[in-house]
Amino acid sequence: MGRAIQVGMIGAGRIGTLHAEHLAHRIPDARLIAVADIVQEAAERCAARFDIPVAVQDYRAILEDEKIEAVAICSSTDTHTQIIEDAARAGKQIFCEKPIAFDLARLDRALDAVRQAGVKLQIGFNRRFDANFRRIRDAVADGRIGTPHILRITSRDPAPPPIEYVRVSGGIFLDMTIHDFDMARYIIGSEVEEVYAVGGVMVDPTIGEAGDIDTTIITLRFENGVLATIDNSRQAVYGYDQRVEVFGSKGMIAAQNNTADRTVVSDTEGVHSALPLYFFVERYADSYIAELQAFVRCVQEDTPPPVTGLDGRVPVVMGYAARTSYEQGRPVRLDEV
Amino acid sequence: MGRAIQVGMIGAGRIGTLHAEHLAHRIPDARLIAVADIVQEAAERCAARFDIPVAVQDYRAILEDEKIEAVAICSSTDTHTQIIEDAARAGKQIFCEKPIAFDLARLDRALDAVRQAGVKLQIGFNRRFDANFRRIRDAVADGRIGTPHILRITSRDPAPPPIEYVRVSGGIFLDMTIHDFDMARYIIGSEVEEVYAVGGVMVDPTIGEAGDIDTTIITLRFENGVLATIDNSRQAVYGYDQRVEVFGSKGMIAAQNNTADRTVVSDTEGVHSALPLYFFVERYADSYIAELQAFVRCVQEDTPPPVTGLDGRVPVVMGYAARTSYEQGRPVRLDEV
Amino acid sequence: MGRAIQVGMIGAGRIGTLHAEHLAHRIPDARLIAVADIVQEAAERCAARFDIPVAVQDYRAILEDEKIEAVAICSSTDTHTQIIEDAARAGKQIFCEKPIAFDLARLDRALDAVRQAGVKLQIGFNRRFDANFRRIRDAVADGRIGTPHILRITSRDPAPPPIEYVRVSGGIFLDMTIHDFDMARYIIGSEVEEVYAVGGVMVDPTIGEAGDIDTTIITLRFENGVLATIDNSRQAVYGYDQRVEVFGSKGMIAAQNNTADRTVVSDTEGVHSALPLYFFVERYADSYIAELQAFVRCVQEDTPPPVTGLDGRVPVVMGYAARTSYEQGRPVRLDEV
Amino acid sequence: MGRAIQVGMIGAGRIGTLHAEHLAHRIPDARLIAVADIVQEAAERCAARFDIPVAVQDYRAILEDEKIEAVAICSSTDTHTQIIEDAARAGKQIFCEKPIAFDLARLDRALDAVRQAGVKLQIGFNRRFDANFRRIRDAVADGRIGTPHILRITSRDPAPPPIEYVRVSGGIFLDMTIHDFDMARYIIGSEVEEVYAVGGVMVDPTIGEAGDIDTTIITLRFENGVLATIDNSRQAVYGYDQRVEVFGSKGMIAAQNNTADRTVVSDTEGVHSALPLYFFVERYADSYIAELQAFVRCVQEDTPPPVTGLDGRVPVVMGYAARTSYEQGRPVRLDEV
Repeated sequence: MGRAIQVGMIGAGRIGTLHAEHLAHRIPDARLIAVADIVQEAAERCAARFDIPVAVQDYRAILEDEKIEAVAICSSTDTHTQIIEDAARAGKQIFCEKPIAFDLARLDRALDAVRQAGVKLQIGFNRRFDANFRRIRDAVADGRIGTPHILRITSRDPAPPPIEYVRVSGGIFLDMTIHDFDMARYIIGSEVEEVYAVGGVMVDPTIGEAGDIDTTIITLRFENGVLATIDNSRQAVYGYDQRVEVFGSKGMIAAQNNTADRTVVSDTEGVHSALPLYFFVERYADSYIAELQAFVRCVQEDTPPPVTGLDGRVPVVMGYAARTSYEQGRPVRLDEV
Repeated sequence: MGRAIQVGMIGAGRIGTLHAEHLAHRIPDARLIAVADIVQEAAERCAARFDIPVAVQDYRAILEDEKIEAVAICSSTDTHTQIIEDAARAGKQIFCEKPIAFDLARLDRALDAVRQAGVKLQIGFNRRFDANFRRIRDAVADGRIGTPHILRITSRDPAPPPIEYVRVSGGIFLDMTIHDFDMARYIIGSEVEEVYAVGGVMVDPTIGEAGDIDTTIITLRFENGVLATIDNSRQAVYGYDQRVEVFGSKGMIAAQNNTADRTVVSDTEGVHSALPLYFFVERYADSYIAELQAFVRCVQEDTPPPVTGLDGRVPVVMGYAARTSYEQGRPVRLDEV
Repeated sequence: MGRAIQVGMIGAGRIGTLHAEHLAHRIPDARLIAVADIVQEAAERCAARFDIPVAVQDYRAILEDEKIEAVAICSSTDTHTQIIEDAARAGKQIFCEKPIAFDLARLDRALDAVRQAGVKLQIGFNRRFDANFRRIRDAVADGRIGTPHILRITSRDPAPPPIEYVRVSGGIFLDMTIHDFDMARYIIGSEVEEVYAVGGVMVDPTIGEAGDIDTTIITLRFENGVLATIDNSRQAVYGYDQRVEVFGSKGMIAAQNNTADRTVVSDTEGVHSALPLYFFVERYADSYIAELQAFVRCVQEDTPPPVTGLDGRVPVVMGYAARTSYEQGRPVRLDEV
Repeated sequence: MGRAIQVGMIGAGRIGTLHAEHLAHRIPDARLIAVADIVQEAAERCAARFDIPVAVQDYRAILEDEKIEAVAICSSTDTHTQIIEDAARAGKQIFCEKPIAFDLARLDRALDAVRQAGVKLQIGFNRRFDANFRRIRDAVADGRIGTPHILRITSRDPAPPPIEYVRVSGGIFLDMTIHDFDMARYIIGSEVEEVYAVGGVMVDPTIGEAGDIDTTIITLRFENGVLATIDNSRQAVYGYDQRVEVFGSKGMIAAQNNTADRTVVSDTEGVHSALPLYFFVERYADSYIAELQAFVRCVQEDTPPPVTGLDGRVPVVMGYAARTSYEQGRPVRLDEV
């Protein structure tokens, strides 16, 4: 246990409420003392549920509260850069949900503001804090499988998001693959040079009508020579499929899916085991706690955040490169974006 | 969420502290407002850690507190029956760690006191609340595997307890197998008629010198005809081995061990996956929370506790039968005890 | 490849035909040149199928053929001892299916005849030649898991034999468990001192009417202190369940079931993999070849057979001990039989 | 059993010897009555080993033998088309190892000769006869996983071939990936429109010096919209890695690697299971027998061969497309080749 960090939550939607619960109950050194939401009632509901003393509509009230050392930004994506800039100027330490922004110019301006203010900014790529993927990253970094050659990521959602969300999400590459782009960089520890994407509308034609695709395979070429393949689908009927495999000169490490239990039934039809955990809330429950613990610790100890602004920026660039690749039917280098 | 239940903790040792943490942070409807420990300093340390307003040495102060509706008894086994009787007379709802007691006469007197006071008594057989074993129980109850024929339980600790504990624990059958006896009854839903136990000192000769054994295989015959085999060891070097399998007329259900992660490494030597979770604190973490949630809920809703005083009594009887069987080299009927 | 061994087959029923196929096609150094069956037509059918030059009704014609160096006895159990004695006197090397006999006096007379003739006798405990169980035996012998403490064998048939067979089979312990008794001795490399068996009729009441049981759990105590548990059922609806596990001071080795393929289907209902191979013909296909290869090799190289007459005798004794234990409800020492 | 088919073997190298063994011992309806090899001694060694009556140097002697109904062509790749044409003109039914040829003009001329002669030609893509992959194909064809969306193939050799072989093999796409191209068409049941390949020299620089690569990821787009990713490495230190996965609208089917046994060791370091079978001879042992059985059956029953000349041609075209894609850094349509 270290000194307590006073935190303000900005945005009390689904993910904000999740983080609020963790800050309230699961992270001993955090004190969640204020919550803001553009919908006042949402802020109040969240405050009531987790005994948060202050609930406001305008996030600037949180930035003005001198007791508050850090903020967690969980509002809608289009508000992120403005709030980051304001929070940086107010001297707050910042945790911000991914993606930072879709507009690279605004994103860079926000990162600049953070740099100038000398505050910390941690991006919410929570999967880095998952036990499976962390173990893979460590194994690669430790040379346990030798020099990495091939990375395979399978990432499939159990069900597509509402079509309204698809229309504004930035498309599959910026909304869904972005997590896999982050995972690829995190595990391999090198930057991607070139992206090639193929895809199609296989799950639901209304996704195509909304201008997006729902199924894709992406090939990555890293600066250090590693080759990677990512496959995504908006709908795996058997649940959230989250597997990663790294193949190297001395062996392979692979993560299987997590399941709710380890029971196995044998009957006349076959041998049956449990489905993967249904979706991100169940699958990555522990990682959400771990990322906030890491954030609180880096504030306490004044160390660099484990997921930086640059880590938030690069996957957005990769998303644009993948989209161009898909649209133009050719590999696209990141430096083209 | 239901109405809040005010709880007092009696005993702030290892398991008491674990329960205190859950009551403080993980069970929204519980309010842990007092803690007692015969070592005042232990009570105070626990109180400080979980923001418990009251820390006392004498548990009777808790029983006298009218705000307190329920108590959790986590003191040493030899104090259980006295505290149960006192708590029952004080009208408190009672959660008590297993085993209730080794002395059957005193145990029965305590159960009588509970009955006369009309309070609830739930025994801390936490494994019943484990996701794997609950799913097995439900599968058996639902007929998913038909009529059960054979039950196999493997239960092996990662390391023996301190030899001081071995000397006073009541022996392997009352200290370790007792959990498996409870599991057997829970899963099969019938009573055991006869027990046969073989055993030996294989792990550590000092356990033999302390009058106990460290390895045993026990055969059970249930009233409904089911046959069961339990094997125990005080030391599985690969970690806590907790498997259950039920075989029936329509199939089989089996629980594998839980692991910290699902990664698999392949190298020139083989294909390597994670060890079982190390010991009960890690392995049964969720079940400890779930049993207290169930206790709080049964107090809130005034329903019978899911693990009764009888459930606490029978495994003790089975432990004595197993001990006699081992000592006399013959099957022993429970009604002999 | 070594020198060719001329072999005569005695008994052309199911298992005889299986061995004949292997001797004809799969064991390069064997020459199957004659087959005898009490039903002349069966001998002829077998001869036609595998290009065997000679088919006779009376096995003594085979014993009189000086070109024939070795015989494989696959006739009905009650004829084994007489044929062994005759074959031994004729100087033939002998492979004999298990069990040698149920009558221990006759069995011992046959073993005496073998000893006096100085010929080899290998018993058809084919499971010793299975890759899984051989690897377990080797691991135990090599100390890979340290000193063995606990042995668990699960052995369940996919379906009961015809009731006519049950009536004459000698009962579950002599007909089915006998393989597991052999496996236990083979893996642990020590003799069993005491047997305790419980059982019941759970699969089919007509088995009970025929004087047998169909479900049993057996506890073994070895001279070297190892404890073992065996469970048997006449009917596992999911197929032939053949698992073995040894737990020791340095770890555990366990064999899972073999399956026809390694595919896994995930759908909305669960994750489904293949059933165990259906029965002994499929499951132990390779072991039947390997045991005859070993027999041919020991004849070629004049080395002791890998499964001796004693290995054939002891499991029969264990079967009687288990039967007595079950009938009398008490542990039975082998030296009582 | 059907009528016996007299077969001549052309080419008695490694794969020819393997097929000869199967024709001699494992396929009851085949009679292997002649073997030819450009090295007379190789033909004679093979003949001696499998009791083949005739051994010649010139394969035309086999074509002239009127008793011989079918030939198996296992000579070096550059001789395939000439022998196919000669055998077709001689009216023989033809089994030919893959690849038919690298020169598409000559390949087409050979297929023409087959067509004109009205004989059968089966190509040796043995993996189609593997139990795992056959089950996947059947599951896809039966709609068990709904409409297929994504195909993933991992195919990694345990060790690179001799550098002399690499120099003449046609490169990784024509020598190694060709099997995966066939598998992709077989499983999906549609033709590939476009190929994109990335690759590198990661295993051994001498492979690069020989003008080849040793690691590649290939993306396929099928006419029916399915997307596929194949990854290859010349060296998986843990053994032959042969996995296939198909993801569709109703679920997923995946094949794990086959292993020599199903034992699992747990010790202080982890839980260890067996490596994949080492290489194609071990891994695909059964499939080599099954493909020849299928060939013999299609000759017996005068049905179309299960792997046609076109099935032999398309993967060669895909290999060229992949090579062009890799060299030019762009997706290549098959109709460009």
